[in-house]
Amino acid sequence: MDLAIVDTTLITFQKEGLGIIEQGGLGIRGNKIVFVGKSDDLRDADEVIDGSNCITMPGLIDAHAHTGLALLRGGAQDMPEIEWMRKGLGPFVRNMTEKDKKAGSKLGVIEGLRSGTTTFCEFSANVRKYVENVYKPFKVRTVAVETLNEVTGVDDKGLYEFDESKGELGLKRADELVDEYGENEMVKPCYGPQALDMVSMDLIKGVNKHAHQREADIHMHVAQGERERIQVKNRYGDSTVKVISDLGMLNHRFVAVHCHDTEYEEKECMAERGVRMVGCPSSIAMIDGIVPPIHDFLSLDAAGGVGTDQAPGPGGHNMFRELRTAAVITKVRDRDPTRLPSWEVLKLGTVGGAKALGIDNGVGTLEVGKSADVITIDMSSANLTPRVSEPFHNYVATLVHSSTGKEVREVIINGDIVIRNGGFTSIDEESIVKEGQERGKCLFERGAKDWEEEAGRMAKEMG
Amino acid sequence: MDLAIVDTTLITFQKEGLGIIEQGGLGIRGNKIVFVGKSDDLRDADEVIDGSNCITMPGLIDAHAHTGLALLRGGAQDMPEIEWMRKGLGPFVRNMTEKDKKAGSKLGVIEGLRSGTTTFCEFSANVRKYVENVYKPFKVRTVAVETLNEVTGVDDKGLYEFDESKGELGLKRADELVDEYGENEMVKPCYGPQALDMVSMDLIKGVNKHAHQREADIHMHVAQGERERIQVKNRYGDSTVKVISDLGMLNHRFVAVHCHDTEYEEKECMAERGVRMVGCPSSIAMIDGIVPPIHDFLSLDAAGGVGTDQAPGPGGHNMFRELRTAAVITKVRDRDPTRLPSWEVLKLGTVGGAKALGIDNGVGTLEVGKSADVITIDMSSANLTPRVSEPFHNYVATLVHSSTGKEVREVIINGDIVIRNGGFTSIDEESIVKEGQERGKCLFERGAKDWEEEAGRMAKEMG
Repeated sequence: MDLAIVDTTLITFQKEGLGIIEQGGLGIRGNKIVFVGKSDDLRDADEVIDGSNCITMPGLIDAHAHTGLALLRGGAQDMPEIEWMRKGLGPFVRNMTEKDKKAGSKLGVIEGLRSGTTTFCEFSANVRKYVENVYKPFKVRTVAVETLNEVTGVDDKGLYEFDESKGELGLKRADELVDEYGENEMVKPCYGPQALDMVSMDLIKGVNKHAHQREADIHMHVAQGERERIQVKNRYGDSTVKVISDLGMLNHRFVAVHCHDTEYEEKECMAERGVRMVGCPSSIAMIDGIVPPIHDFLSLDAAGGVGTDQAPGPGGHNMFRELRTAAVITKVRDRDPTRLPSWEVLKLGTVGGAKALGIDNGVGTLEVGKSADVITIDMSSANLTPRVSEPFHNYVATLVHSSTGKEVREVIINGDIVIRNGGFTSIDEESIVKEGQERGKCLFERGAKDWEEEAGRMAKEMG
Repeated sequence: MDLAIVDTTLITFQKEGLGIIEQGGLGIRGNKIVFVGKSDDLRDADEVIDGSNCITMPGLIDAHAHTGLALLRGGAQDMPEIEWMRKGLGPFVRNMTEKDKKAGSKLGVIEGLRSGTTTFCEFSANVRKYVENVYKPFKVRTVAVETLNEVTGVDDKGLYEFDESKGELGLKRADELVDEYGENEMVKPCYGPQALDMVSMDLIKGVNKHAHQREADIHMHVAQGERERIQVKNRYGDSTVKVISDLGMLNHRFVAVHCHDTEYEEKECMAERGVRMVGCPSSIAMIDGIVPPIHDFLSLDAAGGVGTDQAPGPGGHNMFRELRTAAVITKVRDRDPTRLPSWEVLKLGTVGGAKALGIDNGVGTLEVGKSADVITIDMSSANLTPRVSEPFHNYVATLVHSSTGKEVREVIINGDIVIRNGGFTSIDEESIVKEGQERGKCLFERGAKDWEEEAGRMAKEMG
């Protein structure tokens, strides 16, 4: 055995419950988990990590993220939804270079790693660059979604104009991505139409056909709000869910992100057909003032996961914070403190996210034969004390509502120790932060003029 | 000058805005701030702290907390509001010793200190013990509220029974507290009727009279929900706000906590009369599924602060998390992403809290002549990068939405450095955590029988 974590509290997420094992031990050989049980029954390993005072659990799964935007952290908040994309984000995004996106992605990913995320679902145009430049060198598991978007201009009036050549290029890239990584253990490639209002009917049909041929998932923003609704209604005379349903896209290979602008019957229909759902609580709360319907999907027995989305709206890529936010805002939406209890939220962040992304055969639980994506959390911090097992495991609630993410001590992905005793083993964090700071400063300065002009233009148009 | 923080970004909260000074410096002599300005203009000091890559700002003010309950962290969540007190908290609270409360308070206070809190408003019976055993030795500023509660039994049917001798004892304790600490710079003593349904008319009148004579504040839970409403209606035929208004209690010496079960006109009336308001976002969201009306009070130009309340419901005493929660849940309550913008939320946690507690003459801003309650936050963490000043200060949003509280580096209270470079200077954190863990474990075990019985009894009664 290569690595053992001993004398620890395991939350395995095996079977229906949390599968807690006190005084537990976990054994890893190569990239696989080979032992889950009582610490006393663990045989010798080459390296032994003392897990006392720690919880050991599966790594968290960030089921939807655009990490390339992380340099714009704190850049677009507290504004009306209608302004967010154009006035908030747009002026800076227009001024981003490929190097800015790469530097931002590295920053976002190390933030996520430090707070226990071991799988990122990256949704980006030319996502292969993120895979090759960030995720692969960092040894981080990825669901890589190639964004497809044909919109050339958005003017809030009339229908968006499309450029079919953008769609063709995107589809070609997505096909190549799937062909290249289809068998890769660390990368699951997917097709990612940005949203139904942002692609032509020809492209969405093409995506559906190509994804079906290659048995690949389609991961798509669905029913994001009023602007999408109006565009889709004016173009097709129906709602997003109805249109993609008629196209035969609602099936077990479809991942629907957001879904807050849907009727209950539409959610029911998606759930029945095996569609998986991802909600991004902080992002949608901050940008739209809306609570994503995660609880609704769970109550329909659909697979559901949680994502951090992007940094400029919600603040960053900390999944512990995201899980707590999911619980708290769902409770106030429904005026019901029993909604999204801690155990359910923890599952959302692990096995739930794995199911939502269709990677639960490999990760999401601690089970013999699964890939070794494992984190340890130091519970001896004042904010996580006390930790008790009788008459119930208080630390399940404590993990969700009291941890900050910074108590994560070890992060192991596919058997590789990425963070050991709170420090990165091979990632040069200091230089990434330094580059992020320098590039971020230049980017905000470069975008300042556009930002001011856009504010003026919007003020004029709206006034 | 005794202490200087140099080359730092100051958020002073002077005047209406945030009063940001880049390349700023702060000077402290004794317990007072003696310089706030450009770092270059700072004269020599005995000790110099390098504040580059840091934000330096006033310490956070936790405007309402019951830290004595911290050993019950993770002990009462995800349950119907009707069960929270009796089934969740009650069985364990009944088994708490004075030593448990003291150990819990220490744990809660070091959690708060580590996340930048420099003033705690402690609301507890026999609050003097917390002042003498925790706050004074820890050198932490306190607004000490003596809880007054005459209820002998709560059975959900009929009116609560009162024991007048409990009230007399409490009032005597409160009088003594005010007499003892009235002139103390580090302790502001207040009268704390638990709630209108939990004290007799005689006692509330007595409190009002004694507080008026001593020019002391009354800090009271107001309009906490259905059970209070029913009790007050049945006893007095009116709402809580109407009853205390008729008693002449609504004035500039009254601090109303929670207030979620109030009509808009009642909030308006309170605001007009100078009542100050404290909301506890995580606590009320977790226990009741309700968003406290903090935004409503601010929009009525009333002073408002934020409190962590207790650990068992919301999870703990981290004010950074509390501020973010306030913003996010207010946005979704009103379906308006512009609600509680970051700058307003930061003010709530500092100068707002100081005003709400009536201590803004001494603390809450960085100004010459004020007490030196100051924190520094290390902004070089990946989750707080980048930090820019043009075209706007993105770090205001970043502080609220991306920090975890664990980036706090220095905590200075009344001129004393309590935390330096991330470590406590004189508080023995390790032994406090150890005692908290041991006592917490015993307490949960001791309460297990009552907890199981209470669950059964409630199931029977409700069934």
